[in-house]
Amino acid sequence: MDCMAVTFDTSLASQAEAVDIFYFLFAAALVFFMQCGFAMLCAGSVREKNVKNIMLKNLLDAAGGAIGFWSLGYAFAYGGEELGTTSFIGSAGFFEAGGDTGSHHGWFFQFAFAATAATIVAGTVAERCSMIAYLMYSMMLTAFVYPVVAHAIWSVSGFLSAGNSDPLFGVGVVDFAGSGVVHLTGGVSAFWAAKVLGPRIGRFTDDKGNELDVPNEMPGHSASLQMLGTFILWTGWYGFNPGSTLGITGGVATIASLSAVTTTIAAASGCVSCLMCRFVMSDDNTWDLTAAMNGCLGGLVAITANCAVVHPWAAFIIGIIAGPVYLGGSNLLIKLKIDDTVDAVPVHMFNGMWGLIATGLFANPDLKEAAYGNRIAGLFYGDGELLGAELITILFVFGWVTAIMLPFFIFLRKAGLFRVSQMDEEIGLDISKHGGSAYVMAGPSEAALKKFEDEKPSDDNKL
Amino acid sequence: MDCMAVTFDTSLASQAEAVDIFYFLFAAALVFFMQCGFAMLCAGSVREKNVKNIMLKNLLDAAGGAIGFWSLGYAFAYGGEELGTTSFIGSAGFFEAGGDTGSHHGWFFQFAFAATAATIVAGTVAERCSMIAYLMYSMMLTAFVYPVVAHAIWSVSGFLSAGNSDPLFGVGVVDFAGSGVVHLTGGVSAFWAAKVLGPRIGRFTDDKGNELDVPNEMPGHSASLQMLGTFILWTGWYGFNPGSTLGITGGVATIASLSAVTTTIAAASGCVSCLMCRFVMSDDNTWDLTAAMNGCLGGLVAITANCAVVHPWAAFIIGIIAGPVYLGGSNLLIKLKIDDTVDAVPVHMFNGMWGLIATGLFANPDLKEAAYGNRIAGLFYGDGELLGAELITILFVFGWVTAIMLPFFIFLRKAGLFRVSQMDEEIGLDISKHGGSAYVMAGPSEAALKKFEDEKPSDDNKL
Amino acid sequence: MDCMAVTFDTSLASQAEAVDIFYFLFAAALVFFMQCGFAMLCAGSVREKNVKNIMLKNLLDAAGGAIGFWSLGYAFAYGGEELGTTSFIGSAGFFEAGGDTGSHHGWFFQFAFAATAATIVAGTVAERCSMIAYLMYSMMLTAFVYPVVAHAIWSVSGFLSAGNSDPLFGVGVVDFAGSGVVHLTGGVSAFWAAKVLGPRIGRFTDDKGNELDVPNEMPGHSASLQMLGTFILWTGWYGFNPGSTLGITGGVATIASLSAVTTTIAAASGCVSCLMCRFVMSDDNTWDLTAAMNGCLGGLVAITANCAVVHPWAAFIIGIIAGPVYLGGSNLLIKLKIDDTVDAVPVHMFNGMWGLIATGLFANPDLKEAAYGNRIAGLFYGDGELLGAELITILFVFGWVTAIMLPFFIFLRKAGLFRVSQMDEEIGLDISKHGGSAYVMAGPSEAALKKFEDEKPSDDNKL
Repeated sequence: MDCMAVTFDTSLASQAEAVDIFYFLFAAALVFFMQCGFAMLCAGSVREKNVKNIMLKNLLDAAGGAIGFWSLGYAFAYGGEELGTTSFIGSAGFFEAGGDTGSHHGWFFQFAFAATAATIVAGTVAERCSMIAYLMYSMMLTAFVYPVVAHAIWSVSGFLSAGNSDPLFGVGVVDFAGSGVVHLTGGVSAFWAAKVLGPRIGRFTDDKGNELDVPNEMPGHSASLQMLGTFILWTGWYGFNPGSTLGITGGVATIASLSAVTTTIAAASGCVSCLMCRFVMSDDNTWDLTAAMNGCLGGLVAITANCAVVHPWAAFIIGIIAGPVYLGGSNLLIKLKIDDTVDAVPVHMFNGMWGLIATGLFANPDLKEAAYGNRIAGLFYGDGELLGAELITILFVFGWVTAIMLPFFIFLRKAGLFRVSQMDEEIGLDISKHGGSAYVMAGPSEAALKKFEDEKPSDDNKL
Repeated sequence: MDCMAVTFDTSLASQAEAVDIFYFLFAAALVFFMQCGFAMLCAGSVREKNVKNIMLKNLLDAAGGAIGFWSLGYAFAYGGEELGTTSFIGSAGFFEAGGDTGSHHGWFFQFAFAATAATIVAGTVAERCSMIAYLMYSMMLTAFVYPVVAHAIWSVSGFLSAGNSDPLFGVGVVDFAGSGVVHLTGGVSAFWAAKVLGPRIGRFTDDKGNELDVPNEMPGHSASLQMLGTFILWTGWYGFNPGSTLGITGGVATIASLSAVTTTIAAASGCVSCLMCRFVMSDDNTWDLTAAMNGCLGGLVAITANCAVVHPWAAFIIGIIAGPVYLGGSNLLIKLKIDDTVDAVPVHMFNGMWGLIATGLFANPDLKEAAYGNRIAGLFYGDGELLGAELITILFVFGWVTAIMLPFFIFLRKAGLFRVSQMDEEIGLDISKHGGSAYVMAGPSEAALKKFEDEKPSDDNKL
Repeated sequence: MDCMAVTFDTSLASQAEAVDIFYFLFAAALVFFMQCGFAMLCAGSVREKNVKNIMLKNLLDAAGGAIGFWSLGYAFAYGGEELGTTSFIGSAGFFEAGGDTGSHHGWFFQFAFAATAATIVAGTVAERCSMIAYLMYSMMLTAFVYPVVAHAIWSVSGFLSAGNSDPLFGVGVVDFAGSGVVHLTGGVSAFWAAKVLGPRIGRFTDDKGNELDVPNEMPGHSASLQMLGTFILWTGWYGFNPGSTLGITGGVATIASLSAVTTTIAAASGCVSCLMCRFVMSDDNTWDLTAAMNGCLGGLVAITANCAVVHPWAAFIIGIIAGPVYLGGSNLLIKLKIDDTVDAVPVHMFNGMWGLIATGLFANPDLKEAAYGNRIAGLFYGDGELLGAELITILFVFGWVTAIMLPFFIFLRKAGLFRVSQMDEEIGLDISKHGGSAYVMAGPSEAALKKFEDEKPSDDNKL
């Protein structure tokens, strides 16, 4: 009987493991699909002459990110982590993709997150950043900069981690699915890249080079692609946030379930809030589709840190505030003459910060206990330690990414590698670098049309 | 030993719960992705001057639907339901997103269905409906009209429900995944909206306002987006139909499995049948892509009610008939001078009806028993009660939606809120309301092109 | 107690079955979504005048494939298979969609694979193949040609199968997810179709019909659609490869997990390798987006056979080689004056072969044992039998597909059914066969624009 009991137990445990691995695969596939969303959103947001270029960068984020995260990144993020120790960076498992710990699915899931962080930058620097500079940045982010942040916040050996045996302020940071780890990291990189790279020609200046008070609009070439990208991203977020339970058995299923709801509500309220604020602010009564889309994405970014520890009503408020956070961030960048082609900085950096702060405000003690095993909650429930940890985390991520990336971007600029030539920028990168335009909308030739109309289609081949 | 046995049992039950929640998340994510499908299908089906407008409406269906279904809708649909009672509408759990019953995932799944019902209308009234009227309609449908239908048919307290302890005709209606609840509700709303709103300028009249015998074609601006939307919808339907087992353990997995097959077969036969019928009917030997796509969608709508209770051969027949049902419905609307921009009424209303009727004809006793616990089957197996319940359901849904929506649409028209101005319609809504066209296919400037050809790209920055 | 024990055991087994069915549904939905990916990739790769035509073919691959695989194909592939027997073709379960064995989900999954094999050809023969010929081909492939290959390689009664009780060379072939079954079958069909059909007008000849040394480029009309398709395919591959464990419980979860990683790495290294090789080969320093995309797809095809039995480092090498295999194949076709509109033959046929060969080289004994129960590994681990079986499989697939398809295509050509008329090809198939162009980018009329600018929008309907 003992023997049989053991058998049952083993089977049940083994089945739980299978279900959890399945859950990883499901969530990771959804998060990977966000690469498609970013590619479409970025493609739609650039001018027609730079479409191939930006899509190639997006594709290389996925491809280069996979290689970078396989060779170095995952090992730096999680290699050799051990409860009871604290370290700045992981140090084992290079080129193993999680295989040393039997967790290939863990690698797959974390890779998809790393690639997301990297691809955030692509849109911001679109239309003028050189391919080689972008590749160097992308590899560096996924192989080194991002892993250090992931280690600090998510590894049990991380100094900010809520899973550390001696966590910061006795609580550690809550960044459930990565408002900080992914979005703030990507967003700060994008911010410095745009600052160092400078604006697109003609964005803040007129033909003679004089500074403009009101920047020239450079609308993206296809709202359809933007919308497609936005909907894919929203869908993919159901892997990103609920998937961050890192399994589904063992009592975490209801946490994943709550996360799906809060994610939905914050996306929705972010969308509506941003659209309405933009409508009220506009002097032309415009319903701005881009504002609706970016408000939605801003709400998603903001809920990412706290989706598992806040109630739906709090998610609603977090989304409502995400709208103006986006709009304010967007306007601030314009004031600073920083040119962000797809407004990724307001979406990911400013709302990444807001997401971490909101966690420190709204985290509910009951939900916190269910997800993290302690009842140290947000400021609105009377605790301040968590908010403190969230603020420290913002400072750490901003500081770390700045410390590495700012000098790196300045080096790229000094070396003349960062930016394409003026002529290439003016003609567009698709013609100058990629063999021709992304679109050939030629239709049939005049001669063929004339012949067709003269003769009418013959009936002998009508099928 | 008892103790251990209990432990095993509990663990097994808890694991089953986790798997079922996972299944909800999987299916709901797929159904949510259908919002992307509708947006792309609608965008492709409108003229180029109204693309942003329709996509914003689709996005707001998702966003507004989430808020409406969180605040009121879910509570109206399922709040306080109890076996043994019958009620017209639910009355508990407002603003809780299912949290009161620990079923956030249930809310997530049902929200995705509600948003689907709402978005069906967007395409029908495209290119002339005002944004404010659309928003009012959309909130009303997801927060009130749809929940009442869902309650009647799917809640155990619903008067039509097969789960009611004292079901209609001793059997209750079978509407497994919502040919009636979702598609007929959305389709009837769309029908009345189009009737009250009137056709687009120039659809049934010439330049001088004379009525035309043959309507002017107003082809959508992008068949590619239509195709993309159709394929996304078909894919999403694998969440919609198999997901409606509301879990996967406890013996329902084979029902989900059958549903995936019948869904596939009906989509396929609907597509081929519609394409062929349209080819035969045409006088120009045209293979009509739109007919193939809408036939496919019609087959999907028709199988939705009965995917769990019919054999694949019946699914084949249901799809074959869905094709002409769509074509007939489409022609009927033209005869009635009702202008449905995307032909959503033939797809969702007429095939929603056909799906419910088909259930009453083809439901197999063995499959019915497996899915519903009784052997009361379709007419072709000798039982009439089920068909009766299906017909009553059609009447109820048509009547209820008409009773609320028709006066509402008439009110909107009388109040001058329903339709954009003639000038806005002629210039297109993207320019008049949304700040400019959805597409800017400018390419590089002439000056840049000339400079590029004169100088050729420099080699110093060729990467 | 025995009774209780049995109950536990049964429940656990039943739950495992539910989880496995769920896994089938998940993976099959992802694989089905690849139909959308192929449609978008093909649509983007053809000229603007043939977009509707190619998309209809892609849609009919899914629809016709479902009907063909339901009626005949699945029965030919798996019907009546039995361990201990060997047969050339299955012979039971026609029109049952797996229902005879209670495995509807198995049908659903296998159908999605069959449809993938069929749709590979669509792009190759695009812009000149007649609809009727394409339909005949498509039904034939899914209903007969493909099932025989699937039977030989994947059925336990197949003469090449590793699951056969007396396998070839004592080992049988490893083609885990179908580099051979799916991609080589589709690729060889595409190869012969393109050869027999002949090139598009003007591809290898000038206006006067003189042969050209350098073929005329006929770039696709939309790189955005190509990119969309590629990302959807990559995402769908996470159903294709990890899903081929045919379940997730019972110890195969770690195999699925490994497969997701190797799939990712090979896609990534294929992409980068192809892009770099193309860059080095080019005389114009072009970063070729199409090369990056097709290199990625080539890597995915090559890893498909062996994703479960190679380490990530081997996946990296397999992808690295897939890039030049694609480029070499593409150049070879041009030398042979075979016109492959989307380069599907280099991606699927040449890399399908490479995938099988790579399996015979890199299959690791430990991983092989975990996945296949024996340690007979690849050549680099000292075993030759497996490589032998892989080579025989290439010969068999090439031979079988050629033996059926080549005469069939020649018959179609002789019967005058294979190719559209010259006039239809020149005017484009969308106008000649499908009622008009896929795109109508008209914008508002001049009159409306003028009126709008004269009057300015009225404020009375500004919402």
